[in-house]
Parts: sequence; structure tokens; C-alpha cells
Amino acid sequence: MGSPVDDLRAALPADRVLTDPDLLATHRRDEADLCDAGTPLAVVRPRDTAEVAAAVRVAAAHGVPVVPQGARTGLAGAANAVDGALVVSLTGLNRILEIDPAERIAVVQPGVVNAELRRAAAKEGLAYPPDPGSWESSTIGGNVSTDAGGMCCVKYGVTGEYVLGMEVVLADGEILRCGRRTVKGVAGYDLTRLFVGAEGTLGIITEITVRLRPAPQETRTLVAVYPTVAAAGQAVSAVTAAGHVPSMLELLDRTHLRAIEAYRPMGLDTEAAAMLLIATDTGDGAGAELDRIAECCRAAGASELYVAGDAVEAEALTAARRLAHPAMEQLAARTFPDGRGGLVVDDVAVPRSRIVDLVVGVEEISARHGVLVGMVGHAGDGNLHPVIVVDMADPAGRDRGRLVFDEIMRLGLALGGTCTGEHGVGLLKRDWLARELGPVGLRVHRALKAALDPAGILNPGKVIAPD
Amino acid sequence: MGSPVDDLRAALPADRVLTDPDLLATHRRDEADLCDAGTPLAVVRPRDTAEVAAAVRVAAAHGVPVVPQGARTGLAGAANAVDGALVVSLTGLNRILEIDPAERIAVVQPGVVNAELRRAAAKEGLAYPPDPGSWESSTIGGNVSTDAGGMCCVKYGVTGEYVLGMEVVLADGEILRCGRRTVKGVAGYDLTRLFVGAEGTLGIITEITVRLRPAPQETRTLVAVYPTVAAAGQAVSAVTAAGHVPSMLELLDRTHLRAIEAYRPMGLDTEAAAMLLIATDTGDGAGAELDRIAECCRAAGASELYVAGDAVEAEALTAARRLAHPAMEQLAARTFPDGRGGLVVDDVAVPRSRIVDLVVGVEEISARHGVLVGMVGHAGDGNLHPVIVVDMADPAGRDRGRLVFDEIMRLGLALGGTCTGEHGVGLLKRDWLARELGPVGLRVHRALKAALDPAGILNPGKVIAPD
Repeated sequence: MGSPVDDLRAALPADRVLTDPDLLATHRRDEADLCDAGTPLAVVRPRDTAEVAAAVRVAAAHGVPVVPQGARTGLAGAANAVDGALVVSLTGLNRILEIDPAERIAVVQPGVVNAELRRAAAKEGLAYPPDPGSWESSTIGGNVSTDAGGMCCVKYGVTGEYVLGMEVVLADGEILRCGRRTVKGVAGYDLTRLFVGAEGTLGIITEITVRLRPAPQETRTLVAVYPTVAAAGQAVSAVTAAGHVPSMLELLDRTHLRAIEAYRPMGLDTEAAAMLLIATDTGDGAGAELDRIAECCRAAGASELYVAGDAVEAEALTAARRLAHPAMEQLAARTFPDGRGGLVVDDVAVPRSRIVDLVVGVEEISARHGVLVGMVGHAGDGNLHPVIVVDMADPAGRDRGRLVFDEIMRLGLALGGTCTGEHGVGLLKRDWLARELGPVGLRVHRALKAALDPAGILNPGKVIAPD
Repeated sequence: MGSPVDDLRAALPADRVLTDPDLLATHRRDEADLCDAGTPLAVVRPRDTAEVAAAVRVAAAHGVPVVPQGARTGLAGAANAVDGALVVSLTGLNRILEIDPAERIAVVQPGVVNAELRRAAAKEGLAYPPDPGSWESSTIGGNVSTDAGGMCCVKYGVTGEYVLGMEVVLADGEILRCGRRTVKGVAGYDLTRLFVGAEGTLGIITEITVRLRPAPQETRTLVAVYPTVAAAGQAVSAVTAAGHVPSMLELLDRTHLRAIEAYRPMGLDTEAAAMLLIATDTGDGAGAELDRIAECCRAAGASELYVAGDAVEAEALTAARRLAHPAMEQLAARTFPDGRGGLVVDDVAVPRSRIVDLVVGVEEISARHGVLVGMVGHAGDGNLHPVIVVDMADPAGRDRGRLVFDEIMRLGLALGGTCTGEHGVGLLKRDWLARELGPVGLRVHRALKAALDPAGILNPGKVIAPD
């Protein structure tokens, strides 16, 4: 047995094993702020499952931690390296292996970018609904490993609801196939769902079979503007309580409206306290359904209602919503110049009837600490992203950001919510997950981790703290 | 420490612990034929979670196996007792704790009967979709533990897709709460989905939080009759390939049509080789959608198409389909009198495009062995139930039934299918599950079982054979 790197080079084709310091530095972390990151020993870029398995076997033999990475667009630090780890970058496993219109399934490698799968499905008249904000860059493997969400979830659910089966390299390098290609099937423990959202701590996903849906029918889109965020929250609860199932129900607060308008002017109402962006996609019935939703919005105190005239206009409104993250990054850079400005993106999901309490509570926390917090997110399923603007160069500013973040988490749990609606746990929310789970839940997590990764080499420290 | 029964009596109120031999005999098994069953040491009927936990702690202390039971309507032997086991009957935990229309969730105890939850949800204008054939008697706890399906699944999925959270008594008597009340949430490993379909081998479910849906809109129903089963199968594939999402797509073969007509005459076409029963439930658009589906059915060679004139007629057709099981039991009793006739109900799910291969293959197997096999099931999601009519009093007849069953399983797997679409594994399909999983999958199952139930006391021998 040589050094781990020597053994990797012996086990894999020469160009797969990378140790250039600059490249190692770029593979230290994902997009989460406030999370620790280390420098990996090496980065491997396997091209197939056998190469992933070979790399894991070498790491296992040396007791070297293995950190799987996709596009590193995660917002919780789940892809952050630890010092001396082997990073397994899955971006080279980037083939769409199959799209079967008759079965409405696709089989993909983990490095396929979300938008590529969407486009390939669309060519067959089908849709792959999960649409995280990072869809143009994030990979299906990362989406599955974090159980990523998006704007579709209010009607179509998160990534996990589309995963039928997978191939996984286990901690000892063995290759597991689990799940199925059939629409229906309940055979044995649901291993597939166990790996979904496990953030690479139980195995490395090397192939994924997903369900597709028929392409959506005609979509209608509505904007409703509110004088207070609380009134917008009340509208969201009213829409749900009335039994409507919109295909999108997004909320943007004034901070976001102004940030987006500054980033790309498009006539958003920057005096409004909040805006709801709502769509229906039921084809012939979409207009009538949207009218009924509009009535709920009006009754909740909308100061203005506007229905998009056509698909182009609807798409422009949705595109504006999708600019929230870069627009807020620009706002942070303006607020704290010289690269000091950063964002801590929170991701709390509460029961839908508690949205008003959440938005009012976050406003109070923001005001009390004098820290700017924008609110955006998937209000229709109770999942909001308080976005905390932080001076990353100022330790006191970072501490204040962390304090605000923790208070929002505490509020979310107190409202009967969960610490993550779609971004995952990673490092950022590990302590909050432990509180949410309680001691028995944490013990069960540790037991499952120990069962599948007894030596603890797979993405150590993510999701749950070491025992 | 006294005897197990003494300790149970000390730990629980006096009326909870039952040892009457007749009662023990009735708690030996569920409705699956061809499965072994033993006589329990005692049956406990706890009234709350603490009593379940107390019973499990006593069993754990004595090393006594624990077999949870609901209504014992299962079709795979998952609820069968083993000799000397403690049966924990959950039928006394039968309260609907909460229905929250604003959140569209219900919180129920496991002993609540499926139909009771449906009726309670309907009163609030909501629907609980999962509709196993046993809905008037089976419990939600049993439905969750087997991940039960039904006629709704082609559009609405199986039970597991509705389970948001639960409370579980673990093998050591500790109480775990997992999952959530929010619509969305991805915090930590998906423990909830691990207990779904685990058939009581990982823990005993004592409370369940389920998603509800808005009540369905107007429904339209169609019958299509075919001269061959293969043509009906082709119609099913054509409907799916055309992108339609019916809310029901059931197939009944001639054996079933005749059995139902004999059981309760209602004018079904008993000369047809097969009948499809199809519904759409999209309200205003349901009629137009049904017309498009009817066109697919016609093109696939339907000899007759008939659209139900109103909801009463549609309900009568669906009710006829629901009579399949008692009608086939009557047929078995007529075929083999004196209580000798029995049914072995298979439950194979194949890719939707392979339905024709499945039905043709089953016909061939039936003919070759001279064993009557009726076909019925949820053709729209590729899940069919070959129903094997067996002379249970004749060992050779039982063996022939088992042989036919095994050949159908082999065919299903060869077609890329799974050994169970909705009934679960229990004892009946344990060996077939092992084949479907392969050695790595089986090893992972054993590792998870050992992690959560190291002493192996929870429903031993179900799902996976002892190591």
C-alpha cells in the first residue's frame, strides 16, 4: 500500500486524480456562508460507477474521508471538504442514459445539470418538475442528495418525490441498486428514499431513475401586491384554505423587489411591502382557477392585482423572481463594498397557517438587531427564505448574522416548522437538526449512519455531528 | 421478573392482556394463503402509545417476539404470528386526533379504519386518496406498514406519498417522533419513509400525520370492452403514452367479469375477454379528457365503449370493480366446495409498456398448469393482481398454486417489474424480494434491521429472512 494518492493513481486512469493546489482550493466549499471548510488531499473526477467505487475502496483502505461534490451550488455546506479528504467530483458522470416517454421515466448520471434534463424531457413532451433556483448549474445528483425544492413544489413536491430508483456506491465500495423502474412498487425497505437527502453521508449516488410528468398544460399567472407582508401572508393562507392548488405561489418582500429592480429594471412596484406571484397550469380550467385565487387575494387586502396577458409576460415575471439571489448578492455588495458583503440564506418551512407569524417574527428580529433581512420564497408550501445581509469581513457583523439566523431558526421550530424546507442540513443547520430531532431521533440517525458507514468515512460531520 | 404474561399484566391495565385460546387462535394470521402462522403467547390491546411502549419493553426484557397487527386484512402474511409471540393489536388506538383543513393534514392513531378517515376528511371538503380494496375494514396503521395502494394510485400514488410524519415505538420501547406537520421539509434522513412499508419489522407505528387533498372535482367514468386481454393491455399503454393521467384505470378479465356477475348481477359483458374501467376527475375538463382517452381506447380495438351517464352509474361501475375479491372467493368456493377453495392473490407491478407481455404470459402459465388464474388490477400503473384459484385441501393443488405463483413472480421480474406493487412482502414474497434486491440490497436491509432492532424481536422473519 502506497500513499492514498499513489493508490488512487494506480487504481484510476491518470487524468482522474488531481492535486493541483489551485484546483484543490476551488473544491473546498459550496455556496454556503458561515460554514467551515478544509483543503482536500486530492480531487478525483471519475467517469463511471466503477471508478467511483475504486476511489472509495482506496479511501476506505486508508481511512481517508470521502466528500462527494456536484456543482457546489449548495447553501448549507454539505459539499464542503474537510482537511485531508478525498473529494469525489461527480460532474464527469454527466450523461442522460435514457428518456422513455412510454414509461415517463429518465435514467441519468448524477452530474447531469437540472436544466439539461428539463430540456431533454421537454423534447419528448414531458416535464421534470423539480426546479431549484440553481437549475441552470446544479446537478441532479446534488438535487437528490439535498432533496432540493423550487417553485414547483407547492403543487408538484420536492425532488425526492420524483426519484424511483438509484445506483449507489456504499462506504466499502460495493455497488447497490435500489428502487425500481415501475411507477408503482413497495418491495422492501425504501432504501431509495433513505439516500435522498442524505447528503452523501450514507453512499455516493452514481445513477438515478426519475419519474417524468406530462408537459404542463396552459399556464396563467397573476401578481398581487400588498401594503404589508402580513397581508400577503394572510392571502397565502386564504388561497390554501379555499382548496386551491396553484402551480406556483411565491412571495417577495420590498427588500427583494427593490434589489431585483436595481439589478434589472422591469417595473416592479418597489413601494409595495410584498408581492405574490401565483400561477395555475390546468389548461382549459387555468383561467377560471386563477380568477378564484385572485378573489382570495383581493379579499386579503391586495392593493393591486395584475394578470399576465400572455406566456411571454408570465415568463418575464417568473424570470424576475428567479433573479432574487443574484440581485440580493448585488445588494449585499453595495451595502458592504470591497467584497465584504455576503448573504446567509435561511430556509425555514412552517405550517401554512403560520406564515404570517413567521414573516412578522422575522421583521421583528431584523429590526431588533439592526440587520437587513429580505424575505422571499415558496409561500404556498410555507417555505420561506429569510436572506440575511452580512458584513463578512467584520467578525461582529458575522456574529450578528449568525445570531439573527439562529433566532429565525428558533422561531421556525416554535411555530411547528422545520429547520430546512429544501436546502438541506449540511454543516449550517446541524445543531438545529439535532434540536428538531430530539435525542431519540438523533440516536436513530446515528444508528443508521453506523449501519451503512461503520468507519464514518462518507462526508463526515455533515447532517449529524460525530458521536 | 415473572413470566412474560405476568409482567405484561403488571405493566398494563388488567383488560389489555388477553390469553383466551380462542382469541389467540383468531390472531394467528392475516388473509394471506400459503403462509405459515403460529400461536401467540398473548394478545395485548393497548389504548395509547405508553401502553404500546410498556408492552414492547416487557417483550424486549424477555426476548419475546412482537407481532403488530391491525385489522389482519393483509395479503402477504406480514401480520401472521409466530409461536410464542406477543401480538400487539393496534385496533384500540382508533382515534382521529385532528383534521386541520387549513393545513390539509390529519393526525390519526394507527387503528383508525381507512374509510373512517375518508369520511371524516370528506366532511371538511377534503380527500384522503389511498383506497386499498380493504378500505372498509383495514386500518391506516396497516396501510402505512404495507404501503398499501388502491385504484387511486395511477394518479395519486400509494399510501407512503401521504405520510408526513409519525410516532413509532422502537424495539427497546423508546418513543420516536419523526417527520413533520409542514407540507415541505427535508431535515435529516427520511425516517418516516423508512417505517412506511417496513411491516412492523423496524418499529410499531402509534401515530400518523397524513396529507389530505382538496376533494376531487367532477369525475367522469368510461368502460371499454375488449375481445382479447392483450388488446386491453395495448389500450392501457396507449393512454399512458399519449400523456393522459386518468384518476382510475382498472382492468378486469373475463374470469372476474363472470365472477362479479354471478356474485351480484349488474349487466356486465361476460363474453368480453377484458374490460377497462377508466375515470377522469379534473372537473370542467374531465369530459374532454375522457373523450381523448376514449379515442385511445377505440384505436386499440375496443369492441364497445360506454360513458357513465351520471355519478350514480359511475359509482355502480366502480362498486362492481370493488366486488372482485369477494366474487372471486365465491368462485373459488363454487369450484372447490366444502370450504376447500382458496385464492392466492398475486401483486406484480411491471413497466406500463410491458402490461401486454404480463397478461399474455400469465394466460400461458395458467393454461400450461391447468390452474384457473383471473386477472384484475390497476393496469394504469402497471400493477396487476393475478388471482390463483386453489384447492387448499389438496396438497398437490396447493403445490400447483404455489408453482403458478412463482412462475408469475419470475415473469414479473423478467419484465423489469417488482414482486409487489402494493400488498407488501410479508412471508409470501420474502424469497422473491431477496431475488429482486440481490445480495448487496439484502445485506443493506439486514444492516438497517440490525441497527434498529439488534435483538431481532420486531415481527421476526417478515420482509427478510433471518440471517
